[in-house]
Amino acid sequence: MTDAATALDRFYSVIPAGGIGSRLWPLSRADAPKFLHDLSGSGRSLLRDTWERLAPLSGEQRIMVVTGRAHRAAVEEQLPELTDSNIVLESDPRDSTAAIGLAAAILEHREPGVIIGSFAADHVIANGHAFRETVRRAVLAADAGYIATIGIAPTEPAVGFGYIKTAGTLDIPGAHGARRVEEFVEKPDLATAKRYLRSNKHLWNAGMFIARADRLLEQLGKSEPELLAGLQELAAAWDTPSRGVVVDRVWPRLKKIAIDYSVAEPAAKDGALAVIPGEFEWDDVGDFASIAKLHSSGRGSELAILGKNARVLADASSGIVVSQSKRVISLIGVTDIVVVDTPDALLVTTSENAQRVKSVVDALRAGGSGDVL
Amino acid sequence: MTDAATALDRFYSVIPAGGIGSRLWPLSRADAPKFLHDLSGSGRSLLRDTWERLAPLSGEQRIMVVTGRAHRAAVEEQLPELTDSNIVLESDPRDSTAAIGLAAAILEHREPGVIIGSFAADHVIANGHAFRETVRRAVLAADAGYIATIGIAPTEPAVGFGYIKTAGTLDIPGAHGARRVEEFVEKPDLATAKRYLRSNKHLWNAGMFIARADRLLEQLGKSEPELLAGLQELAAAWDTPSRGVVVDRVWPRLKKIAIDYSVAEPAAKDGALAVIPGEFEWDDVGDFASIAKLHSSGRGSELAILGKNARVLADASSGIVVSQSKRVISLIGVTDIVVVDTPDALLVTTSENAQRVKSVVDALRAGGSGDVL
Repeated sequence: MTDAATALDRFYSVIPAGGIGSRLWPLSRADAPKFLHDLSGSGRSLLRDTWERLAPLSGEQRIMVVTGRAHRAAVEEQLPELTDSNIVLESDPRDSTAAIGLAAAILEHREPGVIIGSFAADHVIANGHAFRETVRRAVLAADAGYIATIGIAPTEPAVGFGYIKTAGTLDIPGAHGARRVEEFVEKPDLATAKRYLRSNKHLWNAGMFIARADRLLEQLGKSEPELLAGLQELAAAWDTPSRGVVVDRVWPRLKKIAIDYSVAEPAAKDGALAVIPGEFEWDDVGDFASIAKLHSSGRGSELAILGKNARVLADASSGIVVSQSKRVISLIGVTDIVVVDTPDALLVTTSENAQRVKSVVDALRAGGSGDVL
Repeated sequence: MTDAATALDRFYSVIPAGGIGSRLWPLSRADAPKFLHDLSGSGRSLLRDTWERLAPLSGEQRIMVVTGRAHRAAVEEQLPELTDSNIVLESDPRDSTAAIGLAAAILEHREPGVIIGSFAADHVIANGHAFRETVRRAVLAADAGYIATIGIAPTEPAVGFGYIKTAGTLDIPGAHGARRVEEFVEKPDLATAKRYLRSNKHLWNAGMFIARADRLLEQLGKSEPELLAGLQELAAAWDTPSRGVVVDRVWPRLKKIAIDYSVAEPAAKDGALAVIPGEFEWDDVGDFASIAKLHSSGRGSELAILGKNARVLADASSGIVVSQSKRVISLIGVTDIVVVDTPDALLVTTSENAQRVKSVVDALRAGGSGDVL
């Protein structure tokens, strides 16, 4: 364990930029995934916002992005500061353990003792300062040997997020508020979510993990030794001429598993997982209801309009309109509506049904309409 | 008064094909008005359906269409049988008295004693046989000197139609069921409409007028002598080389007034208006709620889909989708919805709000979005 300054000097931000965001179809697509859109109204893509939030913490030279080969050009356009050594391109998506684990293995190989923090490219955080302060505490927990996560203090009984059940407080120097994680719990129903809110023991799982890279890989090795071996083989070859050959051979065989299952839950069971409560506003903008809420300050009577040059005429209507075509969009007397208008696909639903968009995407795929996905 | 065969021999159908149908925006447009669309699902435009409904009654050679110059090509495409002498082109729309009155004056000039029947180009009638039987009775009432109209026996307390209040029965040979019209009443509220339905005295005003042309013009002359003079001047010049000069001088000055006000209501006051109850299914398809109803056999749980090559994926949704673009349209959990998707404009509303579409059209016009009207 070292002091705060030293630990932060060894900190590296990792941004896995994957995932289409099926619940945001037809805005999010295979060729225009969620992280490339401005969903917060900041005028910047979620990816760019993530970068700017992390740069003051780790420095621009210490941010690694893991993304699909298909998105390379778009990512580099968003992040012109990104160097070739800090972009990891996946030939095909193999879930979050492979993405984050490979970044950890490469960085540990380059710089033993590095501390990494993994932050999704497509979440919205309102207060960057409070976010960074929370991460700094998590870095100290990581430096103390914990696998650390950040849990968001719930402000409502949300049913769209997973939760972290906390146990007793941990006394880690500099990591104020740290608690031991008892377990992760899946998205609850409303009654359960209300109980969680009252319990003061449950935090929203924001999917952020901060750990020494060697510690993370060690934890992974306990549950997924083969996957770890593959990642280490890749890492050893990464900065050598044989990268391409090894990637082609090893990457396609890596097990697809979320890091929540391969690392976080086992670590919680081992008592090795610490959570730092985050007091900042956070949203994973998982569906259109969530975007509508972000843009209307929570007032249900408003109509949020997303899209440059949107031509929307609304009468007695509320909800959200996303305009990606040049069409005039007229709404009359529709409340809590979700209208997403793109050149080749139109979605009309309600906030209440926003979570069901994914099933429509599945149906379109099954029905031979993959051209609009 | 003559016998039925002779009266029908002198019968001429007039189809005023005007009116954009603002409540059906963005499907109906200035350049694609309601009568050019297939709203009944017959596979033919409403205008073509109207023609085919009337042809067995008056013969194809005795149907006159009054329409705007801008619609000439579209009308002739729909009605290749239409001869040049049977199309009357308006340089600008001057309401129904000018349109129907000019047809009456031209036909009376050509063929004194002609009986004309005027039928909108954009209504839906389910049973052509029953319709024609009713018109035949109206022709006999017209031959007896009445201005006759057809009133539809109401099947529900509709608030979207005007009503005809009937008085005592009229004993006109061959015009079974004829009654005197006491007055015309505007679209009622629901309570009033329910009272009308119970009264058995009220019929829906379907805007059909059948009269001897000379009788119609005489009635018009009582309330609008200047307008009549203008129409007669036009009629006298119509089949001569001076038509163009006279039209340019006279037509733009004709008073704009609906035939309901210039002829029908005054005739009712004079006791000269007879109504024949029509027992056929009729709808003026005035808004999208009405179209939805036509296509779902009255079952509110269905989703009606209009549009060739529509690609609609709906889950737990009802109402109507009109697809005029090639886009995939996906609906999730929206009930009684109205979605009209065209290349340059999109409308999302509900059946309940369908009547309010006109106000949006007005707002678009006022707001400088006339390009999509």
